[in-house]
Amino acid sequence: MKTKATSLDIAYQAGVSQSTVSRALRNSPLVNEETRKKVQALAKELNYKVDKNASNLRSQHTGTLALLLFEDPTSDDSMINPFFLSMLGCITRAAAKNGYDLLVSFQQLSEDWHADYEDASKADGLILLGYGDYVDYEAKLKQLSEQETHFVRYGSIEKGQTGISFGCDNFKGGYDMTQHLIKQGHKSFAFLGGADEHCPEFFERYKGHCQAVKEVNLTVNPNNQIDAISTEGSGYAAANQLLAQSELPDAIFCASDMIAVGALTAFQDKKIKVPEQVALAGFDDISVAHLTSPKLTTMQQNTKLAADILVESLIKKIHNQEIDSGLIPAKLIVRESCSR
Amino acid sequence: MKTKATSLDIAYQAGVSQSTVSRALRNSPLVNEETRKKVQALAKELNYKVDKNASNLRSQHTGTLALLLFEDPTSDDSMINPFFLSMLGCITRAAAKNGYDLLVSFQQLSEDWHADYEDASKADGLILLGYGDYVDYEAKLKQLSEQETHFVRYGSIEKGQTGISFGCDNFKGGYDMTQHLIKQGHKSFAFLGGADEHCPEFFERYKGHCQAVKEVNLTVNPNNQIDAISTEGSGYAAANQLLAQSELPDAIFCASDMIAVGALTAFQDKKIKVPEQVALAGFDDISVAHLTSPKLTTMQQNTKLAADILVESLIKKIHNQEIDSGLIPAKLIVRESCSR
Repeated sequence: MKTKATSLDIAYQAGVSQSTVSRALRNSPLVNEETRKKVQALAKELNYKVDKNASNLRSQHTGTLALLLFEDPTSDDSMINPFFLSMLGCITRAAAKNGYDLLVSFQQLSEDWHADYEDASKADGLILLGYGDYVDYEAKLKQLSEQETHFVRYGSIEKGQTGISFGCDNFKGGYDMTQHLIKQGHKSFAFLGGADEHCPEFFERYKGHCQAVKEVNLTVNPNNQIDAISTEGSGYAAANQLLAQSELPDAIFCASDMIAVGALTAFQDKKIKVPEQVALAGFDDISVAHLTSPKLTTMQQNTKLAADILVESLIKKIHNQEIDSGLIPAKLIVRESCSR
Repeated sequence: MKTKATSLDIAYQAGVSQSTVSRALRNSPLVNEETRKKVQALAKELNYKVDKNASNLRSQHTGTLALLLFEDPTSDDSMINPFFLSMLGCITRAAAKNGYDLLVSFQQLSEDWHADYEDASKADGLILLGYGDYVDYEAKLKQLSEQETHFVRYGSIEKGQTGISFGCDNFKGGYDMTQHLIKQGHKSFAFLGGADEHCPEFFERYKGHCQAVKEVNLTVNPNNQIDAISTEGSGYAAANQLLAQSELPDAIFCASDMIAVGALTAFQDKKIKVPEQVALAGFDDISVAHLTSPKLTTMQQNTKLAADILVESLIKKIHNQEIDSGLIPAKLIVRESCSR
């Protein structure tokens, strides 16, 4: 006799699949009440406990990686932010290239996603992708780590963070773009994008921007930092707010290309010429950046590289190889929107 | 004693998960040789046969839908065609909205994907998405249908096709766009895009175009149909081929926005003004279409609606409700690139 009951024992005795057992034990509404009660009764009878440390299932190969997308406050109900969408496409590709299927699941930061995959034979490991506050998040990362779930994360990287994270070198990106603007002869600046701990990636870009401005003894005007989330509409509104409150600066650095695209439309509506009257820079190099008129100068996040790194690192982790967190450099792409 | 062995019996006796059994029986390289041999021996011993008609597993809820993306000849190794990417994003959203995870898997048309999901408790149903020739494909759809796998398909719709398909009303889309061009006063035309059975969706758009041209007693010049696949590079090349071989027509109808974007760049390089010297129309309304200069007039495929229909129809099918194939109308979006 086995020393310890597994979800497979319950599945076998209940005559249902392992994933049904997993769902039934989590009171999932997808399992009907009768089955749920049967499974739960069997679990009790067999003294079944989810083994968080060394599930025999977790060591199996499902051939599947799970991508957990966290609800992005910047996207509406029907849209995925273009940067995320590009990451989704590249991660799908990278998983396929490495022989894995990809299970994509939308999550709310508040949900119990950290418990959801622990015992299930759903996936060999998790990729976490999403913006947002990491207050709740951090506790869940700790739990994932304690239960020895294999996971990697893409986003902002902060000291003391749990687990392995990859992310863009946002500080350096903001710094490099601002140096480029300064070299073009621009002396006064605005920054469109949220710049506090609630949007840590934009905040890092802003810090890099400020550093570069201060290094050449120019002035950062805090009134010229205007909050915006990564949508065209928000960029449009932020540009108009800037126009209403102050003189046009030489150059505007937008925390994302979507913000820049919205700002560009605002300037076109007001017959303000880019780059003749104001330089406009973005961040991300989403697919539209080379198609706007003027073509957008931006910092490129290499989503294909990031996806390859995430997938290959996770696979190493699954095979118990050591991996380290790391920053991925952004690359200055000079087009037309910032020249004097 | 049970009358018939299931994959659960094998999993239980071999001490592995069901998905490992499924993979082992398919000789997947993800299962080590020892396990594979053990599973295969047990399957033989238990006289296990994949039950294609009424797998007890298929009636279980995995809470997962599988999206099979077929390799698109128009995309390179690193990119997903923007229309597909938008569908991927919208299907992910639609699945989440309906309480399902989405398993995304890239497939080659030649692979045994039709057998891959039949016995596995991987997903409750399949969404098939992809361009291409349907010669091989059709036989596999038949097999899916015979084994009672729940599936829906997005793509071209042809008479006698197996299973439930949804797709854009490409003929009507091509017809409507051409009527618009005619109303703008244009009298001579070119069509950039493949127009034969190897690209059935473009072909339907071309047929609709020809119908509209003929109805008003204008001439279709077959030399002005130039093959292109849905990439900027191919559109650029096709536009240059057109310029090299004949006089500029009044209007160019591109089979996709990507082709139109490439053609636009070709005209900009040659200092040919759109729409003053030539009108340019696209198809799809991908996210860049409203950002080009001039903004692109196009036929919009509503990817959000298509994704909702695919996901909701598949869920109905899973619950044994009747569903029918259907065409989704494309919508004319008039912007700047076709006015006289």
